[in-house]
Amino acid sequence: MINKKQVLKERPIGLPGEKTWELVEDKIQGLVEGQMVIEQEYISLDPAMRGWVNKTRSYIPPVEIGEVMRAGSVGKVIKTEGKTIFNIGDYVTGWGGVQNYCVTNGENFYKVDPEKAPLSYYIGILGMPGMTAYFGILEVGEIKKGDIVLVSGAAGAVGSVVGQIAKIKGCRVIGIAGGKSKCKYLIEKLGFDGAIDYKNENVANGIKKYCPKGIDVYFDNVGGEILDSALIFLRKKARVVVCGAISQYNAESEVKGPKNYLSLLVNRASMRGMVVLDYAPKYMEAMKQMAVWILEGKLFYKEDVFSGIENFRETFLRLFSGDKLGKLILKIKH
Amino acid sequence: MINKKQVLKERPIGLPGEKTWELVEDKIQGLVEGQMVIEQEYISLDPAMRGWVNKTRSYIPPVEIGEVMRAGSVGKVIKTEGKTIFNIGDYVTGWGGVQNYCVTNGENFYKVDPEKAPLSYYIGILGMPGMTAYFGILEVGEIKKGDIVLVSGAAGAVGSVVGQIAKIKGCRVIGIAGGKSKCKYLIEKLGFDGAIDYKNENVANGIKKYCPKGIDVYFDNVGGEILDSALIFLRKKARVVVCGAISQYNAESEVKGPKNYLSLLVNRASMRGMVVLDYAPKYMEAMKQMAVWILEGKLFYKEDVFSGIENFRETFLRLFSGDKLGKLILKIKH
Repeated sequence: MINKKQVLKERPIGLPGEKTWELVEDKIQGLVEGQMVIEQEYISLDPAMRGWVNKTRSYIPPVEIGEVMRAGSVGKVIKTEGKTIFNIGDYVTGWGGVQNYCVTNGENFYKVDPEKAPLSYYIGILGMPGMTAYFGILEVGEIKKGDIVLVSGAAGAVGSVVGQIAKIKGCRVIGIAGGKSKCKYLIEKLGFDGAIDYKNENVANGIKKYCPKGIDVYFDNVGGEILDSALIFLRKKARVVVCGAISQYNAESEVKGPKNYLSLLVNRASMRGMVVLDYAPKYMEAMKQMAVWILEGKLFYKEDVFSGIENFRETFLRLFSGDKLGKLILKIKH
Repeated sequence: MINKKQVLKERPIGLPGEKTWELVEDKIQGLVEGQMVIEQEYISLDPAMRGWVNKTRSYIPPVEIGEVMRAGSVGKVIKTEGKTIFNIGDYVTGWGGVQNYCVTNGENFYKVDPEKAPLSYYIGILGMPGMTAYFGILEVGEIKKGDIVLVSGAAGAVGSVVGQIAKIKGCRVIGIAGGKSKCKYLIEKLGFDGAIDYKNENVANGIKKYCPKGIDVYFDNVGGEILDSALIFLRKKARVVVCGAISQYNAESEVKGPKNYLSLLVNRASMRGMVVLDYAPKYMEAMKQMAVWILEGKLFYKEDVFSGIENFRETFLRLFSGDKLGKLILKIKH
């Protein structure tokens, strides 16, 4: 069994380049007791992956040089050795990495049911991005009916779900996204109350227009100047959810700090970071709720699926160029 | 009755200069029904006053050009007209402003008892700075026994009380202050567990030395680079209390945003702003507790008292040069 895998070759400075990863082939050799081979079907491409190839430890250790690139994945158990926690034919999701086959004892993998939802959903709306959105907006953002909610990266895998959950909960929701078609999508498909096109308009003016009374919750996926613009408009006791900072992940110089952070003081507001892994014990409950909302037609979910493990880097870069709509997925099973 | 008062003449850029305020004399004229004259004894000098002379509204409206400079004060009612809420001889504290006599109907003034504490305490440890420390560290910082607490501006009116309350509550407390004598004061007089002299040592190295396991609560009075250094050392679920940013109040260019704010994300930490006025309904309860701690010798309080309304600006500037120890007070009654 020949395994193709994307291995970290060189830590990038700025955007990952041609030397960042290398496509390597090797053979899946004899398994030991308890091990399984998972044939991977889909790989999740997420902004956080950029952070994992930096040398510094953040909430998880960095990917080491020579290691398979870490990624969420979903696939099928096709081989087992001795007593294993999953059986041949089971579908599972976990950190399978950017490779065709993953050898594992199943730790941190979860069984999924392809009858209940398309397989790829388990690395999207029912996986990390969906869980991030769910717990981020409900538990960190603490939204309540009538809140004015602003979301950046609003057309993305997390932002699009954040905004829709806020709508379900009775909030007024404004999204920030890049480009007219994404903004149109927010309004027409996702039911947002307003959309600000940061590529073609001044964000602060846009917030002023759509949120004349200010913002109760700002869900930040991007950092940088958009975060600074949002801070200006915080209402009293507003909550800023720090979920990501995609504008800063490839920064070659220092990260730009939010110069308007004293708005937190003036408005008795808070800014709180989150890491979805903390909510693992409650994933199941969230997945059930999300599945119900999808079935009821309240939660719209869109994927942008590309193909081929050899196209990993080019596809991954779409996260930063914005050249995709919805959840970015790489199909690696032929 | 001749009233001397410091009137805002010109909004400063950077540090207040000789043209910022003007000492003006006028006569206290006939009072109307319900009004009183308060002979002011002490004026509180606080960093927040720098913000009040900026044009932009923050948590309270700016002082307008031509108005008496806003300041907390304490004094005695010496004249009344008709039915008033206080009586002649009562001591009261409130926003009396930088002037010898204040004419008021008593709104937002509170009666105080000079038998129970020295009069000046009511604009210090039993006034705004004390209340800020009390509610900031207990309600915003949410300290609990065993927490590692870092405080900047630690020798100041707020910071010194924050650190001592944290000690009372069983925390390990490290202070940041400018100069050897202040650091010695923190350790020897206030019982801090460590002190970092930001004027003579690298703050990040100091934090590493005294808090090798990181910080649970950072109480920030200063902003700027010290805030950035503290962010690096946040522990999981740490709380940053944004109380002030004295390093930035006189900034002539942009405020420096905390470039390490993504530490909030990695550590699931939060940063929350506070304004003491929100806690007014609970001041009385806090004052009682603080008074008990003072009597028990658990809370040490030091004032730095200067004299003369004509010396207002020079004395005020000591807040920013650091040339004072403890609560800065201006005695204006001869």
